[in-house]
Amino acid sequence: MKDLCFLSASEIAKGVIAGEFSCEDVAKSLIARADEFEKTVKAWEFLDKDFVLQKAIDADDQRKLGRPTGPLHGVPIGIKDIFGTNDMPTRCGTNLVGGAHTKNDAQVVTSLRNSGGLIMGKTVTTEFAYFDPGKTTNPHDETRTPGGSSSGSAAAVASYMCPVAIGSQTNGSVLRPASYCGVIGYKPTYGLVSRKGVLKQSHLLDHIGIFARTIEDIALISREIYGQDQEDISTIPYAASNIIDVCKEEPPFDPKFVFFKTSKWKNVDKESVKIFESFIKKYSKYIEVVDAPSYFDDIFRYHQIIHETDMAYAFSDYYKKSKNKLGKKLVEAIERGMKYKSQEYVEACENQSYYYKLFHEVFHDYHAVLTPATTGAAPKGLKQTGSPEFCTIWTYLGMPALSLPLLEDKNGMPLGIQIVGEKFDDSRLLRTSNWLINKVKGTNKNDN
Amino acid sequence: MKDLCFLSASEIAKGVIAGEFSCEDVAKSLIARADEFEKTVKAWEFLDKDFVLQKAIDADDQRKLGRPTGPLHGVPIGIKDIFGTNDMPTRCGTNLVGGAHTKNDAQVVTSLRNSGGLIMGKTVTTEFAYFDPGKTTNPHDETRTPGGSSSGSAAAVASYMCPVAIGSQTNGSVLRPASYCGVIGYKPTYGLVSRKGVLKQSHLLDHIGIFARTIEDIALISREIYGQDQEDISTIPYAASNIIDVCKEEPPFDPKFVFFKTSKWKNVDKESVKIFESFIKKYSKYIEVVDAPSYFDDIFRYHQIIHETDMAYAFSDYYKKSKNKLGKKLVEAIERGMKYKSQEYVEACENQSYYYKLFHEVFHDYHAVLTPATTGAAPKGLKQTGSPEFCTIWTYLGMPALSLPLLEDKNGMPLGIQIVGEKFDDSRLLRTSNWLINKVKGTNKNDN
Repeated sequence: MKDLCFLSASEIAKGVIAGEFSCEDVAKSLIARADEFEKTVKAWEFLDKDFVLQKAIDADDQRKLGRPTGPLHGVPIGIKDIFGTNDMPTRCGTNLVGGAHTKNDAQVVTSLRNSGGLIMGKTVTTEFAYFDPGKTTNPHDETRTPGGSSSGSAAAVASYMCPVAIGSQTNGSVLRPASYCGVIGYKPTYGLVSRKGVLKQSHLLDHIGIFARTIEDIALISREIYGQDQEDISTIPYAASNIIDVCKEEPPFDPKFVFFKTSKWKNVDKESVKIFESFIKKYSKYIEVVDAPSYFDDIFRYHQIIHETDMAYAFSDYYKKSKNKLGKKLVEAIERGMKYKSQEYVEACENQSYYYKLFHEVFHDYHAVLTPATTGAAPKGLKQTGSPEFCTIWTYLGMPALSLPLLEDKNGMPLGIQIVGEKFDDSRLLRTSNWLINKVKGTNKNDN
Repeated sequence: MKDLCFLSASEIAKGVIAGEFSCEDVAKSLIARADEFEKTVKAWEFLDKDFVLQKAIDADDQRKLGRPTGPLHGVPIGIKDIFGTNDMPTRCGTNLVGGAHTKNDAQVVTSLRNSGGLIMGKTVTTEFAYFDPGKTTNPHDETRTPGGSSSGSAAAVASYMCPVAIGSQTNGSVLRPASYCGVIGYKPTYGLVSRKGVLKQSHLLDHIGIFARTIEDIALISREIYGQDQEDISTIPYAASNIIDVCKEEPPFDPKFVFFKTSKWKNVDKESVKIFESFIKKYSKYIEVVDAPSYFDDIFRYHQIIHETDMAYAFSDYYKKSKNKLGKKLVEAIERGMKYKSQEYVEACENQSYYYKLFHEVFHDYHAVLTPATTGAAPKGLKQTGSPEFCTIWTYLGMPALSLPLLEDKNGMPLGIQIVGEKFDDSRLLRTSNWLINKVKGTNKNDN
């Protein structure tokens, strides 16, 4: 039963319902996979194999008894270790919270459990989901970073230790590790998923994200975790009951893309520039290249002001009591965050609307924006997690974005293409992403 | 045809469709009313009677030609003079904008026009919708303030110069004038109505509001102006197609209310305390009195930090170029707003969620919160607009609220009861409000 670990979440869900295999079979296959790879990848902060197995057996029993099962029945899911779970510790990548950030399930965890999802374990995060790395390595090359902060979630899905995993992004913490690890990373529109019970860095910037290996799996999980929650005032009512069907539909006509080059384009490494240019050339029929006006550079400063102000507020107790136990980068950010004026903060917030309006116009003519997800493939070394700079704009603007594992460098290291859509148009963005994946894979086939 | 001015917007809409009278008849009646009362009430910043009449005649022509008409066909609507209108000047209560705050219709104005509404004129606002008063007097006593900042909208509806009017509230600018002028004032949940094209004070606190004389009219206008607008990122998709029916339904069982007394209760004048206590006693079957914990006092400071910071940002150009032409209160607020730290601002924002969670619990057991809308009836004098302190909490928390004209003092001056509901539960709050109005009016009948 070892090859069940290669199935997608959707395939697992269908197979369990059809009686082709049991939840226990699936769990055993993933555990066997973890036995083989976890010692190198180190994706898990908490993984109790007996506990997982018992939960899978319970799920099978429930099914045998004819009790109702949800659309994720028996699907193992990895959860970034900043989400509260009532049956596992939550360490947030630090010893300061004592494994007990919260004893309650985060709203996302509740939604997944209610849908039958099997919470498999907690995946490694950087310290407090900021830049100071955890133990995880890149599944494609253990000498390289998996990216962060959702390091373990990306690496666990990439190494087939779970079909899907939950992460979070306040700058580039979902799409960057997805790009480095060669999986799909998705950050829904700001306001679609409740952050209740999740370690908070920034009310305005924190997003929940999903890692998977197929767009259908992204849709499967999205449908269960979208939703308004009175305890997260950013969330809105959002109906996406047909998202799984929509994401697989053929678009009525071929999508048009803007490939958006900001001043950060100069930071892309030379090899990756060639890879992207070649991609653009190959699909030039669908892609128009646009150089971002220079005032887009201000976004990085605005994002920083909001992020650091909010972190200084969110982590003020830790800073006051245990400053010397915090990572250097986090302390520096907090100390900058303590100094901004409220006028700087408001300017940063107000400009969200200003910039978003510009993109709103773009989407009259184009289906999606394309950019690199990262400055290149995963950098060597485990003491940093790479640069989030290609994700900053879209996080700041709350726009839905995915990293699609469509490219690779000469060493075979994955390189993501980022696709960004209009706010609240997530279903169509998944459809466009699926179209692009099929296009690239199909074309590649013809080329071979 | 003079008595058409006493009809509600809903009655006008129905009468026009049924051919009982024309849009021109309605406009003539309202113009005659304005001819009689405007010289005292001074509700209008801009009212071109010939223009109104011509628009009404055009509306009749359109109907005669069998062209499609909207649900507000020919209904005259007053618009606070901080909303952009493409056919009338917009002065914002100051000479600094030169009547040209914007040349485009605000989104609300567009929605009302698309529904057939006849934009009758622009109603007086305080300077930049802050505290420095305009020329309007209270229709019940010209020596008293009508309240502000939506002074003209409240006074125009109260004096039957238009059946409904649009205003805005950043602290108490809809509910306070509604209470003083004896009409219904409604501030929908934050995020239901676009503020595009409206003078901005504060992204986090600005709300659009409605003045009317019946709950059905509130629902009629609400249905047309609710809606998501990509150009106001606070707005969310919200379906309320049945709100007019819902607001008139009988609740399945009698509502339960919390009468909420904050520390501001001590600022209610003695006579009004007696009036409220007598109201509570009379309806004690439905009302439980709750004394607010003292930490609710912090809200006033939080509101102030957000409001003043945001105003300092929004009005910075006016302040830099024309400080000496701005009102004293506005200058003081801007100067305080320039000095806050971003940490203070974020604390103020973050606590919105904290406090709202407390109310979320309240609504498990109660249908609505009741409080005074003002510290008493309209104060004497036209150099101030009264205190917004009874509205601050609900504006800060973005909760839907109405002032209902159910009480009056010994001089016959109106006194509003404020009713506050759960966020996004606006339809039910209108239904509960209608129930309460019928209850009080019915009971009064029995008492007589």
